[in-house]
Amino acid sequence: MKKYIAITCMWLLMFGFVHAQELTSPNGKLVMKFSLQNGGVPSYTLIYKQKDVVKPSKLGLELKNDSKSLLGDFEIVNTKSSTFDDTWTPVWGEVKTIRNNYNELEVTLNQKETNRQIIIRFRLFNEGLGFRYEFPTQKNLNYFIIKEERTQFAMAGNHTAFWIPGDYDTQEYDFTKSKLSEISTLQANARSANLAQTFFATTGVQTSLMMKSDDGLYINIHEAALINYSCMHLNLDEKNLIFESWLTPDSHGEKGYMQSPCTSPWRTVMVSDDARDILSSKITYNLNEPCKIAETSWIKPVKYVGVWWEMITGKSSWAYTDQYPSVQLGITDFKSAKPNGKHAANNANVKKYIDFAAKHGFDAVLVEGWNIGWEDWFGNFKDYVFDFVTPYPDFNVQELRDYAKSKGVKLIMHHETSGAVRNYERHLDTAYAFMKNNGYDAVKSGYVGNILPIGENHYSQWTINHYQYAIEKAAQYKIMVNAHEAVRPTGIARTYPNLIGNESARGTEYQSFGGSKPNHVTVLPFTRLLGGPMDYTPGIFEMDISKLNPDNKSHVNSTLCNQLALYVTMYSPLQMAADLPEHYDRFADAFQFIKDVAVDWDDSKYIEAEPGEYITVARKAKGSEKWFIGNVNGEQTRTSAFTFDFLNADKKYIATIYADASNAHYKTNPQAYTIRKVVVTNKSKFSQWCAAGGGYAISVVEPANAADLKGLKILK
Amino acid sequence: MKKYIAITCMWLLMFGFVHAQELTSPNGKLVMKFSLQNGGVPSYTLIYKQKDVVKPSKLGLELKNDSKSLLGDFEIVNTKSSTFDDTWTPVWGEVKTIRNNYNELEVTLNQKETNRQIIIRFRLFNEGLGFRYEFPTQKNLNYFIIKEERTQFAMAGNHTAFWIPGDYDTQEYDFTKSKLSEISTLQANARSANLAQTFFATTGVQTSLMMKSDDGLYINIHEAALINYSCMHLNLDEKNLIFESWLTPDSHGEKGYMQSPCTSPWRTVMVSDDARDILSSKITYNLNEPCKIAETSWIKPVKYVGVWWEMITGKSSWAYTDQYPSVQLGITDFKSAKPNGKHAANNANVKKYIDFAAKHGFDAVLVEGWNIGWEDWFGNFKDYVFDFVTPYPDFNVQELRDYAKSKGVKLIMHHETSGAVRNYERHLDTAYAFMKNNGYDAVKSGYVGNILPIGENHYSQWTINHYQYAIEKAAQYKIMVNAHEAVRPTGIARTYPNLIGNESARGTEYQSFGGSKPNHVTVLPFTRLLGGPMDYTPGIFEMDISKLNPDNKSHVNSTLCNQLALYVTMYSPLQMAADLPEHYDRFADAFQFIKDVAVDWDDSKYIEAEPGEYITVARKAKGSEKWFIGNVNGEQTRTSAFTFDFLNADKKYIATIYADASNAHYKTNPQAYTIRKVVVTNKSKFSQWCAAGGGYAISVVEPANAADLKGLKILK
Repeated sequence: MKKYIAITCMWLLMFGFVHAQELTSPNGKLVMKFSLQNGGVPSYTLIYKQKDVVKPSKLGLELKNDSKSLLGDFEIVNTKSSTFDDTWTPVWGEVKTIRNNYNELEVTLNQKETNRQIIIRFRLFNEGLGFRYEFPTQKNLNYFIIKEERTQFAMAGNHTAFWIPGDYDTQEYDFTKSKLSEISTLQANARSANLAQTFFATTGVQTSLMMKSDDGLYINIHEAALINYSCMHLNLDEKNLIFESWLTPDSHGEKGYMQSPCTSPWRTVMVSDDARDILSSKITYNLNEPCKIAETSWIKPVKYVGVWWEMITGKSSWAYTDQYPSVQLGITDFKSAKPNGKHAANNANVKKYIDFAAKHGFDAVLVEGWNIGWEDWFGNFKDYVFDFVTPYPDFNVQELRDYAKSKGVKLIMHHETSGAVRNYERHLDTAYAFMKNNGYDAVKSGYVGNILPIGENHYSQWTINHYQYAIEKAAQYKIMVNAHEAVRPTGIARTYPNLIGNESARGTEYQSFGGSKPNHVTVLPFTRLLGGPMDYTPGIFEMDISKLNPDNKSHVNSTLCNQLALYVTMYSPLQMAADLPEHYDRFADAFQFIKDVAVDWDDSKYIEAEPGEYITVARKAKGSEKWFIGNVNGEQTRTSAFTFDFLNADKKYIATIYADASNAHYKTNPQAYTIRKVVVTNKSKFSQWCAAGGGYAISVVEPANAADLKGLKILK
Repeated sequence: MKKYIAITCMWLLMFGFVHAQELTSPNGKLVMKFSLQNGGVPSYTLIYKQKDVVKPSKLGLELKNDSKSLLGDFEIVNTKSSTFDDTWTPVWGEVKTIRNNYNELEVTLNQKETNRQIIIRFRLFNEGLGFRYEFPTQKNLNYFIIKEERTQFAMAGNHTAFWIPGDYDTQEYDFTKSKLSEISTLQANARSANLAQTFFATTGVQTSLMMKSDDGLYINIHEAALINYSCMHLNLDEKNLIFESWLTPDSHGEKGYMQSPCTSPWRTVMVSDDARDILSSKITYNLNEPCKIAETSWIKPVKYVGVWWEMITGKSSWAYTDQYPSVQLGITDFKSAKPNGKHAANNANVKKYIDFAAKHGFDAVLVEGWNIGWEDWFGNFKDYVFDFVTPYPDFNVQELRDYAKSKGVKLIMHHETSGAVRNYERHLDTAYAFMKNNGYDAVKSGYVGNILPIGENHYSQWTINHYQYAIEKAAQYKIMVNAHEAVRPTGIARTYPNLIGNESARGTEYQSFGGSKPNHVTVLPFTRLLGGPMDYTPGIFEMDISKLNPDNKSHVNSTLCNQLALYVTMYSPLQMAADLPEHYDRFADAFQFIKDVAVDWDDSKYIEAEPGEYITVARKAKGSEKWFIGNVNGEQTRTSAFTFDFLNADKKYIATIYADASNAHYKTNPQAYTIRKVVVTNKSKFSQWCAAGGGYAISVVEPANAADLKGLKILK
């Protein structure tokens, strides 16, 4: 039920002596103060339990060819306070319903010399603050170009931060944990190689930025509703520990083309002394517009396998032939080309995956490398790289469509664009129509390599406009989108729930590119996942990649149980069992968890969490009494403990616990695990030792009948 | 009939002592010599009647990240000579059939250190040379980026040139006539203002470049078949009088993204001691691929009027309302907006033009300003500026479509893109389909303002790729295209004859923007028109623009007869009678020529020509015995004289001669003209005084019967 109470306050500032506006969160723990500093510079402060979290910080924007810009000389002409309290139902999610409750302060400012107005709107939730700039339609502020947004976040201390280098093109980095003051020194080391990367400052980092103060306060800076604007990075003033927004430029260095009426995205600061509040916060979604898709029954969570990992590891290839130096679509004759013998997306192999999916209850099979053009697919600034509709000679679209259908399995389409965005847009309608005509309703898209047109980056306004265009057009075709290498999500999926996933961070593939830090997955939910789910593609059972490809010496820095846990800890409506079928066959008992785990939830409870160290979460499957618990552990071995108090009282459940063996270690002994079944009630106390880079996964079901409980111990 | 003789010569260069290759034109007057200079640098020389026209000039390309580039260290591995002689029939043109006759030399070069090959292909016609680089598919030259093409044209003297400033975005300049050595000094003056312009050097000029040597030789440098490559400018080494190719860069300064197999466009050098040979040369078309459109009956020359000049002069507006600071498509409510009362594209006004067209036998009516978005249509870097399908409230698409049809008149569509190229491509299919559904089969497109994406220019490879995409897609829809502000044509219309026009030079509108030089139209056929027709939109009868709009003090620097002559001298399959109907009503007798003149031809004879001074041409209407003669005159008054020897022998014709009155002058007395009818035969000698900025137009018809000749004098 929606309760909307509006309290309007009119402050008439005849003499400009009323400066401070205050906003309190619903539970009173957070306070935001807005005021105009000397020279009419807008400023805000964020206070948690009476202590500054964000010290007085300036707001404003620098405009091109505008000496005044929107930086100062403002006066408050109006303020309006209101409260909002509503509950909405997402199409998919960690929880069944989401409460949207905030107190809002709308401040209208007038710049005296230029007589133009902006509005800064603040929404204070229990878990944090969101605010944005709004530019009402007016003669004196019509078209304008942003040279830089100058939103500050003045930190109250030299916090510990979990950061990745500021980069206009990728977020595929391991996180560095350091003091803010150490960021610039450690940047060089943090900047591992990537196919497309563009740094801007050794003091630059990306959002969302997770921090912890010395006195145990968790702070996160991010943005929400990034639409038709440039993506925000943060640049640190090391001396004063002030972060300032740093937008992604276009090829002329401009940072935003605006036409009033318009708004900036929301800038968010989440604060809590409990790390779990950060993980469970729905601020980012709540700041986005409600769902714009009228009919959403075609949007469905997906558990899938795929012809993918064998290419990522180098065991097979996306390309069909090695015969030519390069290929030109429409000119190269693939039918007569000599196959390289390693092309994985062939009829027989795809059918093998379809069979596997059908046997084990997976919804779909992703196939990469099915379409012509992979022979020289990146690094060449190639424009007409793919056409998204023409298969290789050994991939029969209709035959596989029909075969999959006969097995009750869907195929997931793959649209690698190689960053050639114009080429993708030219083919988009044809490509989407082809999908519908051939039984595909979900597509994984990719933007590997430099964006074409030259001069644009993955995170510039121009390219963000493209991602949005592809999502909205997909919705018209009733197509779900999982966009890799695109901009990190910022809650857009509330408005367009057909955006069921993104990568936009360092995913499982990097375990095959040399490995990721073993605690990587204890950081991601605090950073990348705050804006939307990640297609992390977990479920790797064979950690020694040289066993798939002798030339690849990578090691997956995770125990097998840590991999199982990811299906719970890395929330996503799209979950892949990424390994090869034969590896699942080898560990069929552990694989059972992946088969059982749900991908959509009625409830989620974050049990314990510390960024970089561990996360434990319990989730209740949608429309069911089943629970799934997952723990991922960082580099320090530890014992994780909790009570099953989220279960229904007076009921017995069977818990199947997949845990690290006592000698497990992500590096030296990753595949050592134990499986045990116990009976649990809502009083049961659980305790489990976790290996370095380890974890555990638990599936909890109601017994079908009393006989199921026979022989099982009760966990007290 | 096609005669193809291949003579293959294999030169095996064991010791590298055979250096020079020679190629002669079919009539022997032109000789091209190719050789390798010291260091294996390819070089060519062009000789006309035993004198150097192009002194030894280097060939090659500088590549990115390639220290060797393709500049030297070559050896000749093969040469092949051949002859081609064929006749083809254009869909529309100055002549019914075009002979394509050349001698060809194909030179294969191998770069020794890198072991990669390029081919330079030379074709020597009677009127000039064409050559291009070819990059065969090979491992050692696969993907490469051009930093600069280094094709030189070493001039044999300090010629007089007719040039416009080198500019990546526009050709809309008056021509400057000067010595080559004076170009840099005069550049500043030549650089008149334009909405989008990007200069690169005071020694830079554009193609085609027309020159005349001190000893009366006419020389022209241009390019042909500009497809998937960057547009070439010329940069002059003033000291040595060597022009070098200067390609248009992208936002990173790169000049071309190439993938073998591929070619550069053809670079052309036309030479003759007779200026008329330059005008009548078909080299540019002959170097293009044959027509790729299978069925061309839908491609038809068009004579049209339009709702346009009244906006250009400022009398009316494209925009519908002045109510808002700016508009946003899909958000702004035009139906409730207050009309500004000056919107010309309204139902009543369009019907007036349809009636006028029907009454006077015009094929079509162009209407600009019919679709929403004109309120802030340029200068704002606006992406979603037009949707190409939504009309203003006072323009009823269906009503006007039906009205035009009932009058036997077509409407010409208008797609102003404002340079927002991605937006145009996103809407292109919808826009073209809308045209077909509403009876439009021709579109005038425009690219006013800066190209979006930012960093691209009108003449960069990326944007040229777009123009080609729009043309080829239009052909799929059976739509004819007249692209304004696009790259200058380079003979592409042989391959895609649905490209019936471009502007891409300073057109008639500039007479309303302050005026053009009175001899402008005596230069354009030597420069801009060599690559394809120009939609010059002539036919202005009221030279004092303040009579249309008191705030516009421009004066059309042309006599009325010069305007009539343009329908003959400025060849185009698309000809507009651009003025307002009321001005034609006022001079109905002169207007008769415009009504009578053909737009498609079986034959054309250039009678006399001097760049910057005068052009006289006679053309025979397609499928008819009618002839039309036009003369445009420059600043110097003169008497033009010729014999009607192109008429059939032993026949009498009636010639209607529209000529400057004896006191006419483009500035002081432009509307003074005489009309007289005489009888002519193929022995008749014609002589006519021409005013400054004047000229004459003659229509010649066979008499319907002997009575028509009564009372008319015979011109002896």
